[in-house]
Amino acid sequence: MTTARRDTYTPESLLSVAVRVFNERGYDGTSMEHLSKAAGISKSSIYHHVSGKEELLRRAVSRALDGLFAILDEPRAGEGRAVERLEYVVRRTVEVLTAELPYVTLLLRVRGNTGTERWALERRRDFDHRVAELLRAAAAEGDVRGDVEVRLATRLLFGMINSIVEWYRPDGRGTAEREIVDAVVLMAFGGLRQH
Amino acid sequence: MTTARRDTYTPESLLSVAVRVFNERGYDGTSMEHLSKAAGISKSSIYHHVSGKEELLRRAVSRALDGLFAILDEPRAGEGRAVERLEYVVRRTVEVLTAELPYVTLLLRVRGNTGTERWALERRRDFDHRVAELLRAAAAEGDVRGDVEVRLATRLLFGMINSIVEWYRPDGRGTAEREIVDAVVLMAFGGLRQH
Repeated sequence: MTTARRDTYTPESLLSVAVRVFNERGYDGTSMEHLSKAAGISKSSIYHHVSGKEELLRRAVSRALDGLFAILDEPRAGEGRAVERLEYVVRRTVEVLTAELPYVTLLLRVRGNTGTERWALERRRDFDHRVAELLRAAAAEGDVRGDVEVRLATRLLFGMINSIVEWYRPDGRGTAEREIVDAVVLMAFGGLRQH
Repeated sequence: MTTARRDTYTPESLLSVAVRVFNERGYDGTSMEHLSKAAGISKSSIYHHVSGKEELLRRAVSRALDGLFAILDEPRAGEGRAVERLEYVVRRTVEVLTAELPYVTLLLRVRGNTGTERWALERRRDFDHRVAELLRAAAAEGDVRGDVEVRLATRLLFGMINSIVEWYRPDGRGTAEREIVDAVVLMAFGGLRQH
């Protein structure tokens, strides 16, 4: 089997290069020059595909956000007791995070200096609020502890989940995705103590 | 009571300005010029106190690291069952994090480009390992769940704890420190589910 050398970029392959550079240099620190060098194509070739780096950012964080919001529309996120729906959403969130690692990493590092970044932050907050609502419902049904304020619990829960982007590398040598997903669910819902 | 205007800097007050600027601009992105402007004193006045920005970084992260390592020498970190020692260390870690917020924030953002940064990362890993050992001992005593690998559990635990620097602001308007400390201990050891 021979591998043809790719001389042309698709919007998809350009996006994956851009996300890597954004994550390495930070979005603010990335110029079209950096993107052109990393992709090995001219700036005008990049402009053939996109209007500029902000469009690449929007496409990249959209991919992460679409993956996360799609979870909320899955049947198991809407059926049964709130605690079961919450557990399902937590499990799937970790799965999306590991499957779309560079895109979610970028989303979590967005600062808010441009319109696109502020839009991404707003959408992220929306997602967090949807999960907080589930937590509130689960507490009202008596399945989730009532002694930690819902917003605080949501923050700590996402703190645990989002920290995975800092060390998880899907190279097949480290901890497997399945093990991470199970560990988050066990720790988030059951805690460390043996019951 | 009158407040005298401070025209002179102490190493301590210079450090607190430097930490703020490092956290705002990133250590790499901070020049002596930035520090001089932020402190309102000349660069040569800064050099009167310290050899350069790397010394300021070392002093700042040392303050965070000294605070964290001191916890391990407190009596309650060394007495009783491992799970109780672990719970005490987690509680005190969150207390040090909130009390020394800018210093711990800087420590958590260190990248490893300079000798001082690599030294700080190494010390941070040492601290994490000490906590992982406690977790391992608690699991061996049967008090902590055995179905999550110790290193993974430690990572998730610190993920939850360290995420606090992203949103906690000690301005008296948000969540109180005491509430955060209690919430982390309840969630980390008991989990979300009502037992």
